[in-house]
Amino acid sequence: MNRNARLFSLMQGKVDAVLVANGSEGVSDYNFRYFVNPFSGIFEHSFAVVTQKRTYVFTSILERSALEGLPVTVYTYRDAKQLEKLLSSKLRGYKSIGINRATLPVSYYNLIRKCFKGKLKDCSQALMECRGVKDDEEIRRIAEACRIASRVADMVPSMLREEMTEKELATLITKAMYDEGGEGNSFSPIVSFGKTSAIPHYFPGKVKLRKGHFVLTDFGCRYSNYCSDITRTFIFGRAVERQKELYETVLTAQTEAIKQIRAGAVAGEVDAAARRVIDARFKGRFIHSLGHGLGLQVHDGLPVLARGVDKKLEKNMVVTVEPGAYIPGFGGVRIEDDVVVTGNGVKVLTNAKKELIEV
Amino acid sequence: MNRNARLFSLMQGKVDAVLVANGSEGVSDYNFRYFVNPFSGIFEHSFAVVTQKRTYVFTSILERSALEGLPVTVYTYRDAKQLEKLLSSKLRGYKSIGINRATLPVSYYNLIRKCFKGKLKDCSQALMECRGVKDDEEIRRIAEACRIASRVADMVPSMLREEMTEKELATLITKAMYDEGGEGNSFSPIVSFGKTSAIPHYFPGKVKLRKGHFVLTDFGCRYSNYCSDITRTFIFGRAVERQKELYETVLTAQTEAIKQIRAGAVAGEVDAAARRVIDARFKGRFIHSLGHGLGLQVHDGLPVLARGVDKKLEKNMVVTVEPGAYIPGFGGVRIEDDVVVTGNGVKVLTNAKKELIEV
Repeated sequence: MNRNARLFSLMQGKVDAVLVANGSEGVSDYNFRYFVNPFSGIFEHSFAVVTQKRTYVFTSILERSALEGLPVTVYTYRDAKQLEKLLSSKLRGYKSIGINRATLPVSYYNLIRKCFKGKLKDCSQALMECRGVKDDEEIRRIAEACRIASRVADMVPSMLREEMTEKELATLITKAMYDEGGEGNSFSPIVSFGKTSAIPHYFPGKVKLRKGHFVLTDFGCRYSNYCSDITRTFIFGRAVERQKELYETVLTAQTEAIKQIRAGAVAGEVDAAARRVIDARFKGRFIHSLGHGLGLQVHDGLPVLARGVDKKLEKNMVVTVEPGAYIPGFGGVRIEDDVVVTGNGVKVLTNAKKELIEV
Repeated sequence: MNRNARLFSLMQGKVDAVLVANGSEGVSDYNFRYFVNPFSGIFEHSFAVVTQKRTYVFTSILERSALEGLPVTVYTYRDAKQLEKLLSSKLRGYKSIGINRATLPVSYYNLIRKCFKGKLKDCSQALMECRGVKDDEEIRRIAEACRIASRVADMVPSMLREEMTEKELATLITKAMYDEGGEGNSFSPIVSFGKTSAIPHYFPGKVKLRKGHFVLTDFGCRYSNYCSDITRTFIFGRAVERQKELYETVLTAQTEAIKQIRAGAVAGEVDAAARRVIDARFKGRFIHSLGHGLGLQVHDGLPVLARGVDKKLEKNMVVTVEPGAYIPGFGGVRIEDDVVVTGNGVKVLTNAKKELIEV
């Protein structure tokens, strides 16, 4: 089943078409890329109208070359007036249109409302569900992004030098991913040395690497528009006992969580499997969720592996598994892999080493 | 005058506060970064309430460390319920609140509508105008991003090798910007060889560099959250007469446009100055606008230098000046610099060489 048919099967015929709008920098709906599937392009102020059988694109003349060869019908416009006319005439045949309330700016909503007099219905949930389960092409791209990030994760120990800054290491990691065939960071890398590793959303700064530091690295790349996301934590020098204990606990937590994952497993129970292990040794130190969907976006909507989520995992969902334990003033450990859910287990896409490495 | 005061002076007291919402990846409002001005951070599902005198931030507990030391009042929340409660209680005192219709998703609009019973007014225009004129700190950061990109532009000739692909050159440029102190691409670099240089929004592909090719490179970096954007076009090998003519025409067009820029100049007339030069030799081949504002975003709203725009430039606006001429089947030339508008002219921030370089 192709992406269009899949979306409509999830909505059970509630609407005639779904309109997704891609704005300018900062206002993008990745569903545009999902249904149009271009190799490249910017697509500012572009719209895709997705029907069960076909995708129509309304875009600027500058983007025409990026759409060549794709199985979509393209309408170009030159200015706001032409766009309005085009939308009015091309949407006329529909009775009801779906929109993505989660991303559609109020200004576009007003424009659509002006051009289309039928019913508008929110389809954000169906879009998330549609994208939550990946097709083969998506899995191939994610797997390649994961392969690149994994190779670089294995190189990190050889990049470490006493007195280097977190920011320097982040830049080396970014450049290495380009060398391995990546097409840019999938997010701004997190690199934290020593005590700062206890801050999960830390941004690499001027802290210098010293013997005994935790080295927490969380990064990923894009490949053909798809993302990877991996975390590895190292020790610079010899690990002290408490560091080893923290590391082994998080690794055990991750192993236990991965064991739970299969089609039909309940997301919240996977999170609980990791949380039990950490809470037994380091109560309350696992301060975020276990994982998130991964795809065109680094946080790809579904599934979410978090406390109390009763949703069941499905075959071909791709998800991160990233338990962590953080002790303020001492440091933190996080270990993250990306996995595809299979019928009776998982396929791990990030194959970098995971045993404790003392550099 | 600080940023808050400036925004309110532009709105002439129409609202008590302006609320800007920063969503997840793909749904960000850069006004959040403008008013909060953090060094780093992700700020998913975060809100800033900007009043004339103070900025209030509603964000997740994971972002608290990224806000340390900033002159803002921070409220953290743990889940959607807490956020709703927080917004309801903290917005209660206002009669009218401004929103940014251009970026605010319908789902957030509905949330705000639920939490706040007063008037909501669109302030997107005032926000654009506020950000259009840069303060000293912004200009310093943009200037540094421009310095880095310029150094790399001057290195491009030494990177060229026969048979290399566009994508390989794009990667070398990206890596060189990191080496020079940049903090990542400000947009995905455009590199086009030979005939593909006639496509302004081209994305680097597998075309291999051959003698006689145009080499069009359009790139920029971020520095402390601010962007640069530069284009240089080279000839690999000896230029033929028509290539020289195209190059010199575009360079003259750019020179003429830059001469027009000063506080008080009309944006459309600056565009016209460049267009006249190109149309005289290559009629109709300048198929896009002359330039755009530059700042936290690579297309930073205001000013737009385009046909028919009657808006006047103001001191401390930062704008790109990027005429181009494109001949399908032959190739294209674009030359782009970033400039600050001054009282009686411009300061050019990108100082890479501009004479025709044959490599």
